[in-house]
Amino acid sequence: MANAIRALTMDAVQQANSGHPGAPMGMADMAQALWSRHLKHNPAAPKWFDRDRFVLSNGHGSMLIYALLHLTGYDLSIDDLKAFRQLHSKTPGHPEVDVTPGVETTTGPLGQGITNAVGFALAEKLLAAEFNRDGHTVVDHRTYVFMGDGCLMEGVSHEAVALAGAWKLNKLIALYDDNGISIDGNVAPWFVDNTPQRFEACGWNVIGPVDGHDVNAVDAAIAQAKTSADKPTLIVCKTAIGKGSPNRAGTAKAHGEPLGGAEIALTREALGWTAEPFVIPADVKAAWDATAAGAAVQAEWDGRFAAYAAAFPELAAEFTRRMNGELPANFAEIAVEAVGGAHDKAETVASRKASQIALEVFTAKLPELLGGSADLTGSNLTNTKSTPALRVDATGTPVRNEAGQLGRHINYGVREFGMAAIMNGVALHGGYIPYGGTFLTFSDYSRNAIRMAALMKQRVIHVFTHDSIGLGEDGPTHQSVEHAACLRLIPGLDVWRPADTCETAVAWSMALANKNRPSALLLSRQNLPYLAKDDADVITKGAYVLAEPEKAGLKKKAKAVIIATGSEVQLALKAQALLAAEQIPVRVVSMPSTTVFDRQDVEYKTEVLPAKLPRVAIEAGVTDFWWKYRCDAVIGLDRYGESAPAGVLFDLFHFTADNLAATVKKVLAK
Amino acid sequence: MANAIRALTMDAVQQANSGHPGAPMGMADMAQALWSRHLKHNPAAPKWFDRDRFVLSNGHGSMLIYALLHLTGYDLSIDDLKAFRQLHSKTPGHPEVDVTPGVETTTGPLGQGITNAVGFALAEKLLAAEFNRDGHTVVDHRTYVFMGDGCLMEGVSHEAVALAGAWKLNKLIALYDDNGISIDGNVAPWFVDNTPQRFEACGWNVIGPVDGHDVNAVDAAIAQAKTSADKPTLIVCKTAIGKGSPNRAGTAKAHGEPLGGAEIALTREALGWTAEPFVIPADVKAAWDATAAGAAVQAEWDGRFAAYAAAFPELAAEFTRRMNGELPANFAEIAVEAVGGAHDKAETVASRKASQIALEVFTAKLPELLGGSADLTGSNLTNTKSTPALRVDATGTPVRNEAGQLGRHINYGVREFGMAAIMNGVALHGGYIPYGGTFLTFSDYSRNAIRMAALMKQRVIHVFTHDSIGLGEDGPTHQSVEHAACLRLIPGLDVWRPADTCETAVAWSMALANKNRPSALLLSRQNLPYLAKDDADVITKGAYVLAEPEKAGLKKKAKAVIIATGSEVQLALKAQALLAAEQIPVRVVSMPSTTVFDRQDVEYKTEVLPAKLPRVAIEAGVTDFWWKYRCDAVIGLDRYGESAPAGVLFDLFHFTADNLAATVKKVLAK
Repeated sequence: MANAIRALTMDAVQQANSGHPGAPMGMADMAQALWSRHLKHNPAAPKWFDRDRFVLSNGHGSMLIYALLHLTGYDLSIDDLKAFRQLHSKTPGHPEVDVTPGVETTTGPLGQGITNAVGFALAEKLLAAEFNRDGHTVVDHRTYVFMGDGCLMEGVSHEAVALAGAWKLNKLIALYDDNGISIDGNVAPWFVDNTPQRFEACGWNVIGPVDGHDVNAVDAAIAQAKTSADKPTLIVCKTAIGKGSPNRAGTAKAHGEPLGGAEIALTREALGWTAEPFVIPADVKAAWDATAAGAAVQAEWDGRFAAYAAAFPELAAEFTRRMNGELPANFAEIAVEAVGGAHDKAETVASRKASQIALEVFTAKLPELLGGSADLTGSNLTNTKSTPALRVDATGTPVRNEAGQLGRHINYGVREFGMAAIMNGVALHGGYIPYGGTFLTFSDYSRNAIRMAALMKQRVIHVFTHDSIGLGEDGPTHQSVEHAACLRLIPGLDVWRPADTCETAVAWSMALANKNRPSALLLSRQNLPYLAKDDADVITKGAYVLAEPEKAGLKKKAKAVIIATGSEVQLALKAQALLAAEQIPVRVVSMPSTTVFDRQDVEYKTEVLPAKLPRVAIEAGVTDFWWKYRCDAVIGLDRYGESAPAGVLFDLFHFTADNLAATVKKVLAK
Repeated sequence: MANAIRALTMDAVQQANSGHPGAPMGMADMAQALWSRHLKHNPAAPKWFDRDRFVLSNGHGSMLIYALLHLTGYDLSIDDLKAFRQLHSKTPGHPEVDVTPGVETTTGPLGQGITNAVGFALAEKLLAAEFNRDGHTVVDHRTYVFMGDGCLMEGVSHEAVALAGAWKLNKLIALYDDNGISIDGNVAPWFVDNTPQRFEACGWNVIGPVDGHDVNAVDAAIAQAKTSADKPTLIVCKTAIGKGSPNRAGTAKAHGEPLGGAEIALTREALGWTAEPFVIPADVKAAWDATAAGAAVQAEWDGRFAAYAAAFPELAAEFTRRMNGELPANFAEIAVEAVGGAHDKAETVASRKASQIALEVFTAKLPELLGGSADLTGSNLTNTKSTPALRVDATGTPVRNEAGQLGRHINYGVREFGMAAIMNGVALHGGYIPYGGTFLTFSDYSRNAIRMAALMKQRVIHVFTHDSIGLGEDGPTHQSVEHAACLRLIPGLDVWRPADTCETAVAWSMALANKNRPSALLLSRQNLPYLAKDDADVITKGAYVLAEPEKAGLKKKAKAVIIATGSEVQLALKAQALLAAEQIPVRVVSMPSTTVFDRQDVEYKTEVLPAKLPRVAIEAGVTDFWWKYRCDAVIGLDRYGESAPAGVLFDLFHFTADNLAATVKKVLAK
């Protein structure tokens, strides 16, 4: 059976003349043990809720999972395998969620697969605590991970492993493809970690090393791992990369290039594999076929869920809603409550505080909100009355507080990248909408996971506070300068930099409603005044006319437009007033989200930014970004900040109403 | 003595009304043990080569190092301490190298200080192997690190610890401030790591836990650590955060805010500290004063170095040159050899290969070049004949190969962030110019360390290959789209995306000559044709006129400008030819470095991009960036790529000469 994987891998990589044969050939026996003897899944229903999740963290070995999906009966044909790594095929170079049925997460950037898997296992544990009832276990599945040396070298894997241990994720089982080879060769000179010891140090159960080519040994190890009551398990599987290839097995050469016709022939001979390329003998196919077993296991669960629904109809409906990723039917009303509340109260607070005020409303009404912070809870203000801290007891069971609430706010520790990639896993699993906080500057640490959320179209919400030189004394290491612009350039990510409580509440409502898109909220440390406005709905368009000259007492048509975001919008209004006093009428456009504004139709965009009016943008960050709006001048910061109180810095770098007004006059004089 | 640190910390934080008193107060006794009994340094000469390096990885505890520098006699006055966290003071919120004498690296972003320290210790070990001679030990110092729980949670610290173990950096001694508190509170729920076990798993020597408030115990532990022959050492010091404060010690509340007048009074009483704020009793000051001992220890080394210089004059001169960061006197000739060689050979190769060809020249002549790759050596092509792989023997001694060469190319393993932060440490230490490779997309992983290099003005060179959809079948997880633009937005970083061998060689020569600036070279996986040009010097300006219409056989003045970079320049030339055939004269500007071009004077910029000519830019990446050059159209990619052969993708996304020519015509027709 394992040789079928090897044969398909060799054939597909050869046909594509590109790809990674070594890992799938090395892990084929491990895969046979897991997929043919343990994995709970139904090939006919890849999205069935209570399936076990399988994550191929070393995603370059994609042919392993494609072969498995084909062999076990998923909607992935031999023709799909023949189209490996070709345009718009269902078999891209690395596994991509929503492209291939049965692929749970997009992997390739090393270390993130195991971290996503921690998110999967966390979501399962929390849903089980929230929804299972005595005699009615509807949430009960495992998360399996295959991973290689590369994943274990990446720092993010250490963050994930530490948290899996802290949360006692006993249903997480990771199989380590310990082949001793990475791209640069035998890993001994650069990878001396005693991996079992390292995992034990983080509270894991470690099994092995076992012979990763002995299906029975791996099978037994998995069976043992499944009995772990309070610890995640690592199974160390000693393997040879490219196993089966007489001349390439055990060498880095097996990793990333086709074996070539001659070596394939030798390998087939060595394996005793006589079928034609891309042909699987009927008996082998039958042995792999998981469709009948899959249908049976799901039918059994369907029965269980029906009994659950009969006993707890409301709970079952809520469970179904949550797993479908649907917001509550009255979400529009909830959003109105949050936005309207902000509008009515008109408070002067930091936008990070505005975020917490909005979150109080949303977390009270949306039990799926699962918050967290990378050890900056009191600074990010991501916690609310409805979201007690997540804690597990000595058995690994999530603890209820005195009020009976389960934990819904996660202390991720100082692990920004881990937090972001775990949130991706939680979102992919379903049942929760994860959000998490850190300082905007440290979005650098998690950046590739933010990108992965966008690539995978997952609703993950990043709360990035202390968004500029406005954080003051902590200095340039902590002051974002380029970060707002650089986040806006990530395709598929919505970025918000709201100017007051109302814009912040709208940003949250939009982020929550964006089912297929991650969002980042960039929030101030310092207080921001409430900006009087007639209409909050228009904020949903990403940019809007906040104040015509008339607001500043000048009944003339605007001769110029000031575009501002976040903490600089107040300066725009002050500059407007200064200019009005000189009979110069300008319009102030608040643009909390460039990414949302860019999706509006041309009519609206032109209405907000008329083609003939000169434009001046102001934002406490790099200027380059703003020229896309055809500005005539941009006031920004193209250098690092300084350690000093915020007010001193805004003056130092000329973020003042005076400078803005003078700049508008200069532009008009041109 | 330690209480002097506590008093100064309380006073400075209170005066600034901002800062982090907890860590300095908790680490004061550890600091006394290290700084008064072990640290080899000379306050009068903070840059003296053979000093021990001290890194405060938990940089928010900056008052610890400021207090130490003041007390031991550095040029840091009481008035400087009074200006803590104020504009342009020598005591910014986090320690900044080159701002404060005695600060070795800028810290604050957690995990990077310990990683920089690994770079320091690596540089020391390599320089010792390269320059010490029997009886003449001129390189012989240690690297000490203080770090807290936050640093240890960060994944990058795990990468650093793993490499320190692999390289057997026995002169690296890390003191762990094990106070059990991070910002969110007692770390137990989110930090279950058995830290000693984890370090042992990575080949470290672990001492303790010792009582971090017992100066003699810490002293003894350091003395023991100094005897380690082949392993780095971790000393676990159990401490109380905010030690001395009756009501705040041992709580998260001590971490990040002033104690307040009342608590300071109570703390002074508890400590028996009666001196006025910012006053250090003379006997305490005398006990701390390290100026005499520092002068003596340096004088001793000066004598040793004089003997060395007498015995090995050339070696001593080379050592001095290297430590001053000066290039060889004939560097201009070497650069001409690299650039001229490329020009003469006019090869069609991938720019990653062009980089290797240039590196062959530079590494042969510049022994300070210390290369490496995050496990992609054969793909990044960062190695050369002159740079054998770095290996250490069982005793930790760097190994010479059969030809007698020491290793100069580092297998960092799959640890991009670790590589980048280690390179920062190597550059800060001096003696080497570090460069390292990975795929451009994974610059995301190392992004904050790239930023830190720019903030610290360090000559670190990043080789980012596989720079676009041109990498083909590996698909969107590996294809850079936003990365070129996002790197260009990091203030102080030079970014190059060369179009051929000649531009690549110039990029290398410029990166090497940029003593106070990091550079990133963005290089293609795929072959690029050589672009005929008369003059290679002009490439140093970042952008230049590559081809006037006449090159395409049309003797007319250009009516439009095409701006292109890297792999798209060849398309610009083809479009120019297509347009010439229709009697439409256009100029092609190659812009390998926007950041360098932006620093040219207005005259040159206007010469290359005349104000009145319409402009069309083309680059296989996000478009937003290019509007800063007042383009009339931009051809780019504002979405993720696909898994398919490169040629298919360039067509799919309309990166063709036809589309470019049509776009120019559209712009001209407006």
